Amino acid sequence: MTSELSFIAALRTLPLHPAARNLDDDCAVLEVGSETLVLTHDMMLAGTHFLSEQDPADVAWKLVATNISDLAAKGAEPVGVLLGYQLGDGDARFVEGLREALTHYGAALLGGDTVGGSGPQASGLTAIGRATHRPVPSRGGARAGDRVWLTGAVGAAMVALEALRAGAGDSSAYRRPQAKLAEGLALAPHVTAMMDVSDGLLLDAWRMARASGACLSLDSTAVPLACPEPRREEALRWGDDYELLFTLPAGTAPPVAATCIGEVLEGPSGTLQLDGKHVEAGDNLGFEHH
Amino acid sequence: MTSELSFIAALRTLPLHPAARNLDDDCAVLEVGSETLVLTHDMMLAGTHFLSEQDPADVAWKLVATNISDLAAKGAEPVGVLLGYQLGDGDARFVEGLREALTHYGAALLGGDTVGGSGPQASGLTAIGRATHRPVPSRGGARAGDRVWLTGAVGAAMVALEALRAGAGDSSAYRRPQAKLAEGLALAPHVTAMMDVSDGLLLDAWRMARASGACLSLDSTAVPLACPEPRREEALRWGDDYELLFTLPAGTAPPVAATCIGEVLEGPSGTLQLDGKHVEAGDNLGFEHH
Repeated sequence: MTSELSFIAALRTLPLHPAARNLDDDCAVLEVGSETLVLTHDMMLAGTHFLSEQDPADVAWKLVATNISDLAAKGAEPVGVLLGYQLGDGDARFVEGLREALTHYGAALLGGDTVGGSGPQASGLTAIGRATHRPVPSRGGARAGDRVWLTGAVGAAMVALEALRAGAGDSSAYRRPQAKLAEGLALAPHVTAMMDVSDGLLLDAWRMARASGACLSLDSTAVPLACPEPRREEALRWGDDYELLFTLPAGTAPPVAATCIGEVLEGPSGTLQLDGKHVEAGDNLGFEHH
Repeated sequence: MTSELSFIAALRTLPLHPAARNLDDDCAVLEVGSETLVLTHDMMLAGTHFLSEQDPADVAWKLVATNISDLAAKGAEPVGVLLGYQLGDGDARFVEGLREALTHYGAALLGGDTVGGSGPQASGLTAIGRATHRPVPSRGGARAGDRVWLTGAVGAAMVALEALRAGAGDSSAYRRPQAKLAEGLALAPHVTAMMDVSDGLLLDAWRMARASGACLSLDSTAVPLACPEPRREEALRWGDDYELLFTLPAGTAPPVAATCIGEVLEGPSGTLQLDGKHVEAGDNLGFEHH
């Protein structure tokens, strides 16, 4: 088995659509006539992306929410989704979770495919959105002098997964993540760069730095926590919170609740600093997909 | 586990996009500004949709070809694809097959998602096409008096799978199905109804009859075979050939090579006749998805 990074490197040698943005982004941005569509696809496997014993309604919710979160980071309003679904136990619950999530985010089912099979249940969702602001925000627009902002807090999903595993406490942040759709739509006209934080704040901030050819300098103590203070270092590296990370020119206030957690420096290009210290990409910044 | 039919019935209770056409069709037809997009998603599981020991390049080819076949039936030219892929053995071969198929069909990679996981390898593909003719052909447009036509022959994939399993003979029709893209584009302005034959000619003809509220009356001896004559009955029920089934008004000649295999009768609505005899939907018409 190849690593995800080397597989994606191989994919880059294929005929790539200009909208693919070199596959670095979570979304493709496709010009269609006078409209701009935003397309994203996420796949989930039982045992890898959720606990096999989880309520299928939660699985469906998360599948929708993670895709809508990608649209949110582009300031795109949902149009519809295509579902790929492997039948299994709890199909009725899956449909219920799908109903709740589609209704919540104002998305509609466009179609898809249903398959039978044994083995860990697999599902995939393609979400299609309509850009509400052009140019569509990318993760590559951060410029020296910009401030770095974050909606919400980190660490909520970390604590919630522990609660789920322990069978005690509030696990909703892990089971039912909230895509910051309204925030993304409000932010799109103002940001210089934006992305959702799915794999950990530090890893995703480093990705923004790399895509922007800049240095993101973060103040770790400025980052709001949804967990006890002693777990700050872990929370900076934990994924699944789906907050929006974005940059604004200095002096610009965001139109939604958010916290300034750092600034953009000229260089070194594609690097991350935490409390003034350079952090290497290999330093366990967050969830790398395996 | 629910059946596919009851799962789809449950999906119909969800918020459905008007483009979803009640989920009966393989594709969603989405109006975007002045353009019409055609969207389809197919999923494949190792051991269910292909032999686990098959060359991953063939798997990638088939994943692309089956989706492009859905676009072909809509007269849509490919724009791009989103790939959901579970890493496994033979990832490099998978990319090679993807390259061959995307190049062959003039499609480009738009993006997607790569995941790790154990268990039978799952992959999914969303294909996006641009309609070249409006109204976009549907499977629901067959009218009494129309003639029923088929491109190519049936039974090729059946014989080819046997060759693959035996390790002797030509297995290419099963491994590398050809989507009838050029034919679909040429036919779209002329047909009253069109669909691809993925699950068996009789089953798909019955679906066209049901969607059209008409009776499709087929002459079994008129159907061209790609297998020995004694296997005609089997070949009419075998899937994976990806020919196009379409209807034309009487007196209209198709612009591509095709064979007239029957006619459309007023009724009974939603029924299929084979050699003048009524065939029940439950009569093992072809591949039902499990």
